[in-house]
Amino acid sequence: MVYRATFFINTSASQELVDVTDQVEKVVRSSKIENGICHVHSEHTTSGIVVNENEPGLIQDFLKLLSSWVPRTGWSHGVNAHAHLKSLIIGNSRTLPVFQGSLNLGTWQSVFFLEMDGPRRRQVTVTVIGT
Amino acid sequence: MVYRATFFINTSASQELVDVTDQVEKVVRSSKIENGICHVHSEHTTSGIVVNENEPGLIQDFLKLLSSWVPRTGWSHGVNAHAHLKSLIIGNSRTLPVFQGSLNLGTWQSVFFLEMDGPRRRQVTVTVIGT
Amino acid sequence: MVYRATFFINTSASQELVDVTDQVEKVVRSSKIENGICHVHSEHTTSGIVVNENEPGLIQDFLKLLSSWVPRTGWSHGVNAHAHLKSLIIGNSRTLPVFQGSLNLGTWQSVFFLEMDGPRRRQVTVTVIGT
Repeated sequence: MVYRATFFINTSASQELVDVTDQVEKVVRSSKIENGICHVHSEHTTSGIVVNENEPGLIQDFLKLLSSWVPRTGWSHGVNAHAHLKSLIIGNSRTLPVFQGSLNLGTWQSVFFLEMDGPRRRQVTVTVIGT
Repeated sequence: MVYRATFFINTSASQELVDVTDQVEKVVRSSKIENGICHVHSEHTTSGIVVNENEPGLIQDFLKLLSSWVPRTGWSHGVNAHAHLKSLIIGNSRTLPVFQGSLNLGTWQSVFFLEMDGPRRRQVTVTVIGT
Repeated sequence: MVYRATFFINTSASQELVDVTDQVEKVVRSSKIENGICHVHSEHTTSGIVVNENEPGLIQDFLKLLSSWVPRTGWSHGVNAHAHLKSLIIGNSRTLPVFQGSLNLGTWQSVFFLEMDGPRRRQVTVTVIGT
């Protein structure tokens, strides 16, 4: 079985992590799929999907690491090159197990949309595959 | 349903991004799968698969970022250690949604084979799963 | 068809790569799935899954690169922030093709659990999907 759904989010800053765990979990439950995988995807080239702990200090640390690692200027591609570059490394999607009809996240895992060229309206596509 | 196909590319430089979107899309269409996911994989340890915009300036920027981030020398593993290291971070595959019988790419998304120890003959494996 | 199994490993160092190829391959064989994909997942937020060559020099190089790239101190999140940050970039899972009832790895590819905040007891979830 395959179940697919999309949802939209409005990001509110240039660099931001938006917790989308609840939206993704809702899709998994709607799918009625008990066992399989869930693919969470962003079709934008200046964004990413990541999974980790939702803790304000860590979120700050992560955005700080990305900024210091990929400078904002000095690129050929132009003003948002830095966002494309980080997206190339981090990737546009994450895949998670589905177990007993639910996202099989660890105790400290949340799913985030990573905005790197906001604020913008963004779309996330969730595909659940399984039985 | 599962559909699998492989194709070969000949890279022409030491560090290079090769756009393989058309080859991957061809596999998706041959699969006759309408809805699901497409896994694009490289079985080589000095390469990667990435997704972003096909723009010459950005491609240059990305190869420059990778080179400055992981120096070519100073490693135990030998002359191509830098390529293995970048591959470990970036990953050997990307997964994309399949929708209405086609790769569900955003407007600015292309799929690239990332060569980091070329030129070489390389193989890409595409697995499409869905209904 | 979907087949899911988990296994445990005990890591023995703070920073360590543990080769789990045999454990993952065993799950694939138990699944009786001939053709599809295999998703290898860690539900911990200070770890990752990576794929590359099992060579002692390279393993040293990789841990050295990660340490120099993300310093251990200077973060808001606390003492293991560096491990969370590297996990955010590298990702908690890798997906591999399954072909002829076996993991479709390249000649030099092994699957590793990446410990970044050990030693600890860790769980790995393997989901095989296909026909």
